[in-house]
Amino acid sequence: MDRNEFRRELAQQLRVDSVRCSAAAGSGHPTSSMSAAELMAVLLDGHLCLDLDNPNDPRGDHLVFSKGHASPLYYSCLKAAGAIDDAELLSYRKHGSRLEGHPTPVLPWVDVATGSLGQGLPIAVGLALCAERLDRLPARAWALCGDSELSEGSIWEAFDHASFERLDNLIAIVDVNRLGQTGETMHGWDLDLYAGRARAFGWEAIEVDGHDVEAIEEAFARATSTSGRPTVVLARTKKGAGVEEVEDQPGKHGKPLEDPERAIEQLGGERDLRVQVAGPEGGGERHRFEPPGGESPRFDVGEEVPTRKAYGQALKALGDVRGDVVALDGEVSNSTYSELFRDAHPERYFEMYIAEQQMIAAAVGMQRRGWKPFASTFAAFLSRAYDFVRMAAVSRANLRLCGSHAGVSIGEDGPSQMGLEDLAAFRAVHSSTVLYPCDANQTVRLVELMADRDGISYLRTHRGGTPVIYGPEERFEIGGSRTLRDGDDVTLVAAGVTLHEALAAAERLAEDGLRARVIDLYSVKPADVPALGRAAAETSAIVTAEDHWPEGGLGDAVLSALAEAGESARVRKLAVRDMPGSGKSEELLREAGIDAEAIASAARELVGAASLA
Amino acid sequence: MDRNEFRRELAQQLRVDSVRCSAAAGSGHPTSSMSAAELMAVLLDGHLCLDLDNPNDPRGDHLVFSKGHASPLYYSCLKAAGAIDDAELLSYRKHGSRLEGHPTPVLPWVDVATGSLGQGLPIAVGLALCAERLDRLPARAWALCGDSELSEGSIWEAFDHASFERLDNLIAIVDVNRLGQTGETMHGWDLDLYAGRARAFGWEAIEVDGHDVEAIEEAFARATSTSGRPTVVLARTKKGAGVEEVEDQPGKHGKPLEDPERAIEQLGGERDLRVQVAGPEGGGERHRFEPPGGESPRFDVGEEVPTRKAYGQALKALGDVRGDVVALDGEVSNSTYSELFRDAHPERYFEMYIAEQQMIAAAVGMQRRGWKPFASTFAAFLSRAYDFVRMAAVSRANLRLCGSHAGVSIGEDGPSQMGLEDLAAFRAVHSSTVLYPCDANQTVRLVELMADRDGISYLRTHRGGTPVIYGPEERFEIGGSRTLRDGDDVTLVAAGVTLHEALAAAERLAEDGLRARVIDLYSVKPADVPALGRAAAETSAIVTAEDHWPEGGLGDAVLSALAEAGESARVRKLAVRDMPGSGKSEELLREAGIDAEAIASAARELVGAASLA
Repeated sequence: MDRNEFRRELAQQLRVDSVRCSAAAGSGHPTSSMSAAELMAVLLDGHLCLDLDNPNDPRGDHLVFSKGHASPLYYSCLKAAGAIDDAELLSYRKHGSRLEGHPTPVLPWVDVATGSLGQGLPIAVGLALCAERLDRLPARAWALCGDSELSEGSIWEAFDHASFERLDNLIAIVDVNRLGQTGETMHGWDLDLYAGRARAFGWEAIEVDGHDVEAIEEAFARATSTSGRPTVVLARTKKGAGVEEVEDQPGKHGKPLEDPERAIEQLGGERDLRVQVAGPEGGGERHRFEPPGGESPRFDVGEEVPTRKAYGQALKALGDVRGDVVALDGEVSNSTYSELFRDAHPERYFEMYIAEQQMIAAAVGMQRRGWKPFASTFAAFLSRAYDFVRMAAVSRANLRLCGSHAGVSIGEDGPSQMGLEDLAAFRAVHSSTVLYPCDANQTVRLVELMADRDGISYLRTHRGGTPVIYGPEERFEIGGSRTLRDGDDVTLVAAGVTLHEALAAAERLAEDGLRARVIDLYSVKPADVPALGRAAAETSAIVTAEDHWPEGGLGDAVLSALAEAGESARVRKLAVRDMPGSGKSEELLREAGIDAEAIASAARELVGAASLA
Repeated sequence: MDRNEFRRELAQQLRVDSVRCSAAAGSGHPTSSMSAAELMAVLLDGHLCLDLDNPNDPRGDHLVFSKGHASPLYYSCLKAAGAIDDAELLSYRKHGSRLEGHPTPVLPWVDVATGSLGQGLPIAVGLALCAERLDRLPARAWALCGDSELSEGSIWEAFDHASFERLDNLIAIVDVNRLGQTGETMHGWDLDLYAGRARAFGWEAIEVDGHDVEAIEEAFARATSTSGRPTVVLARTKKGAGVEEVEDQPGKHGKPLEDPERAIEQLGGERDLRVQVAGPEGGGERHRFEPPGGESPRFDVGEEVPTRKAYGQALKALGDVRGDVVALDGEVSNSTYSELFRDAHPERYFEMYIAEQQMIAAAVGMQRRGWKPFASTFAAFLSRAYDFVRMAAVSRANLRLCGSHAGVSIGEDGPSQMGLEDLAAFRAVHSSTVLYPCDANQTVRLVELMADRDGISYLRTHRGGTPVIYGPEERFEIGGSRTLRDGDDVTLVAAGVTLHEALAAAERLAEDGLRARVIDLYSVKPADVPALGRAAAETSAIVTAEDHWPEGGLGDAVLSALAEAGESARVRKLAVRDMPGSGKSEELLREAGIDAEAIASAARELVGAASLA
C-alpha cells in the first residue's frame, strides 16, 4: 500500500470508528467527524509531531479540536495512533469513561477542553505564542476548526492576534462541510470568501479539496514551510462523507447513524491500521527566564494606596523572584497597573489589546505548559470572557485573573465600567478562588498566594485609594478572614472598600454603646466558615456590606457559610440595589446604602429588632 | 459662512465643549472626542435624520456611540443641536446629572448604553435589522466606533451579519486616531488594512481624512447612496486634534486637559453655533404583523415533555396571538425548539448563527423599538454574551432569554454543554427575572409572563423530558412558588429537574414517617420570600437541590430570601460540586448528589440533627 493509499484507508478507518463509537454510545457527532477524516489521516501520518507516551513534552506539537463535537474523530485518531484501544473507544460517552462527549483533559493528550465553539483556535494562538515567546521551542499548534464556528467573533480575535504576533507555528485547518446544526452555514462552500478574510487578517490561506489526500499533503507541506505568518487550510468537505445515508444531507447533525452496519459496509468495513505519529524533532530544553531577584513591596500603615496599584507592584515583584510568572492585559495596563510588570519583564508580558476572549484563551494556552499567567482588565470587562473562564475550569486550567475598577466606588465613569457582578460570576466557576483585598499589603500577600493556587483564582481590586490597615508582615491565607475588631452585639462582614466603611460604622456604633465585631472576608471563596459560624453564634446579628449587586456575592457567600456551619443569625445584606450613575465615590457609596452610615443604621435596626424579639 | 466653514466651526465648538465639560468634571475623555469632531459636525449637519423632540419616532435614525467614552463629544453634539443647554453640559459626570461618564438611556436620545467597547456596532446592526425587517421604515443606524475596539471579536460578528443581511441602512464611522489607552493600537493608521478586512467581510469601505469636512461630506453621501451592503467610513484622525498639548500624543487618554484655557484659545474660543438636525423624511407608519390567532399549547398531566420543547411551542403560540413578539436563535433552534416559532412566523425569526454576542446585541436593538425579542441558545453558551447582557441592563433593555440544556441532566454531551452557572450569572444582572420551570404547562405560563416583563428575563429549560405535574389551567406568577406537598418535618425546595427528585424524595421520607413539604421555586428571582419564610418557621429544616454549581443559584436564593424574611432554619444546599463527565442523566444526577436519594438522605440527616439538638 503506498502512502496515499494508506492515508485513504486510514481516513476510512477513522470514519468507521467514528460511526462505531457513536453507535455504541447512542449519541454523538459522527457526520461532523467524517468530513475531516482525510485531514486528520494526513496530519497524523507525517505532519503532527507529538510523543504520545509523553504528551507533556514541551517540544511536542499541540492538536486542538476547536470543533470539539468531532470527538469521535479525535478518539478514533487516538486509537489509530495506539494511545487507546478499541474497547476504550467503544466506552465513548459512557459514565466513567475518559472519552467524554466533548474532549476534556481527563485524557492526557487533550490540552484543553473544547465544545464551546470558537475557543479552540484562540487557545491554539496561546499555545503557539507560548512555544514561540516563552518555551522558545519549535512546537506547532494545529487547530481543527468547523466552518460554523467562524461566525464567532473570538475566531477573528485569534486571526488578528496570530498574524500580529507572526505565529508561523500555528496552523488552522477549517473543515468547511457547509452544514451547521440546523442548516447551511452563512457562507456555505464559499471558500474564496473565507480565504479573502483570512488574507485580509494577515494569514496565508490555502484552499483544498478536503477529501483529496494528495492535495492535503501539499497544503500541509506549504503550511509548515510558511514563515512569518500563520496558515489556514480551508478544506472543502462533505459532512458525513462516504456514507449515502448522511453525506451532505441536512438534518444529520449530532446523532448516530440510523444504519451503522450499512455505513460501515459502504466505508469498506472495519480496519485495524496503526499510524506512527512522529515524535518531536530536536528542540532541546524549554527556555527559562532568570528572575533578577527582589523583594515584595511594603506599604506603611495609614498610607492611601489603590489596591490595583498594589496588584501591579506585587505582580512585578513576583516576576522579580519567579521566572515562571507571566502577565497579560487587555490594553488597560495603566489602569490595572500590570504595566509595572510589563516595564520590568517585557519578555514575559503580553499585550492582548481590547480582546478579552483572546486574552483568557492565551492564558489558558500558556498555563498548559506550566507557566503562571496573570491576566488583568477591568472587572466589568472580564465578563466579556465569561464563557472562556467557564471552559477554562472544564480544562482544569490554573489561571490567575485580576479585575480592577470594581463597584460603584470607581465613581464618575458610570455603570458600564463598574464590575458589579464579578463576585457572583467568579464564585460560580468550578474550582474558583475569589479574593477581595481591602488594602495594599493584603493585596501583595494574596497575589503571592495566587501564584501557586490551582484552579481559577480571581482578585478584585479598586480604582481609588484605601488606607493601609495591615502591616507588611501580616500573613493571610486563602479561606481565612480577619476579625479586626471584637464585639458581641453585632457582626459586620465586609471586604474591600466596604471593609473601611464597616470599620467606620463600628466606631459610630461604639458611640451608641454597641460593640460591633468586624470581619474582613477577603477570601470570599472559600469563605471562612468557622469564623463566620462563631460570629453567628456569638453575636446573632450580622450585617454584610458589598460594593456589588445583592445576588451571588459576599452576602450570599456569608449566608452559605452560615448554612454550612449549621449556625443561624439575623442577617441583613447591604449591596447595590439600584442602577448607579456617575458621581463621586463617596456619593455613590452613600446612594447605594453601603457606606458607614448605612451599615451602622442596619446594625442598629437589626440589634433593636433582636432585643425586641 | 459657507457650509464647509460652518461645519469646521461647528467641529471646533464640539472640541471646545468637550474640553470644557471634561475640565468641569475633572475627568472624562476629551482627546477621544476631539478626533471625531469633524465627523460628527458633518453628520449632524445634513446626514443624520432624527427628530430630537421625538426620539422614539421609529422613522428617525439612530446614532450609537460605540466608543462610548467619547461622551463629551456626544453631549456637545446634543448641545449644538439644542437638545440640552450649556448648564447641563457642564453637569457632566456630576452626581444626579443625566450626562453620565458613558452615555446611558437616562438621556432620551441615547438608544443604548455604551462604554464596554465592541458593543455599539453589533447593537446598531440590530437597530438596522429592526428598521429593515420589522419596522420596515427607512431609518438608518449610524455607529461611531473607535479603532481600538476593532480588536473585539464582536465587531467582526457585526461585520459578518450586517453584510449577510445586506443592511445598507447601516453606516459605521471609525475614528482611526491610532492611539488606544496605553499606546498605539495593533494597526495604527493602516486604513488600508481595515478597509481590506471590511471589504472581505462584504462591506463598502471608504477611507477618508477625518478632519477634512469636504471629504467627509463626500464619504457620507456615498455611504447613504450605497445599496445592498453596509458602509464603513474609515477616518484617519488625530487624537486630541487641534490642541498642541495633546494632539497625537501618547499618554493623553481619559483625562481632562492640563490647560483647558489655552486649549480653548487654540481652538478659537467658545462658540454658540446651533445646528439644525434634519427630521426623518417620509416613511409613514411602522409595519405591524397581523398575528394569525391561536391558542396556548396544553399538556396532559403525566405526559413526559422536555421543557425546552414546551418553550418552543409556547413561543410559537405567543407569536400566533401577538404581532410584536420576535425570536432569535444562535443556530441551535432545533435544540432550543425556537424552530417552532421560525416555521410559523418566518418574518419575525432571526437566525443569528453561532454568534451569541451579536444575537443579544440584535435583540437589544429590536427591543429599543418596542418589539419583544426572545433569544435562545444553550444556557452554557449564553455565557458567551454575558457582557452584552450586563450592558443590556445598563441600557434598561427589556429582553427575554432562554437557555436550554441546563445542568448535568443533559447527560452524554459532557460539561462543556451543561449550563451550571447560568442561575448565578443571571441572578447577578440588574433588573433580572430568573425562571426555572419543571414541567411543560408551567413553562407555557412563564413564557407568556415574560412577554410583558420589564428588564432581563431568563428562562432555564431542560434537554430531557419531565412529567407534566400541573394542569393546563394552573396559573403562576413571577415571584411566586407552589407548595406541592405539605409537611412540617422538613422542607425540600427545588425547581426544574430536581423538583421531580424532591417529590420522589418526599415519597421516600413519608415511608420513614417524615412529612416533607415540597416547594417548587420556579421563580428563582424574585423568590417567594413569604412562602420560604413560612417554611423556615414551620419546618425549621430545609434542603435545597439544584442542577447547578453550589454558588449563586437556587440554594443561595433561598438563603437570601430567608434572611430577608428574618427567619432562620438549618439549610442544606445540594448542588453539583465536582466537575461532571458524560453519562446518563440519572447517573449524573446521582453522582452529583442531587437525586431523590441524596435529597432524602440530606433531609433525614438534617432532621436527625435537629431532633438531637
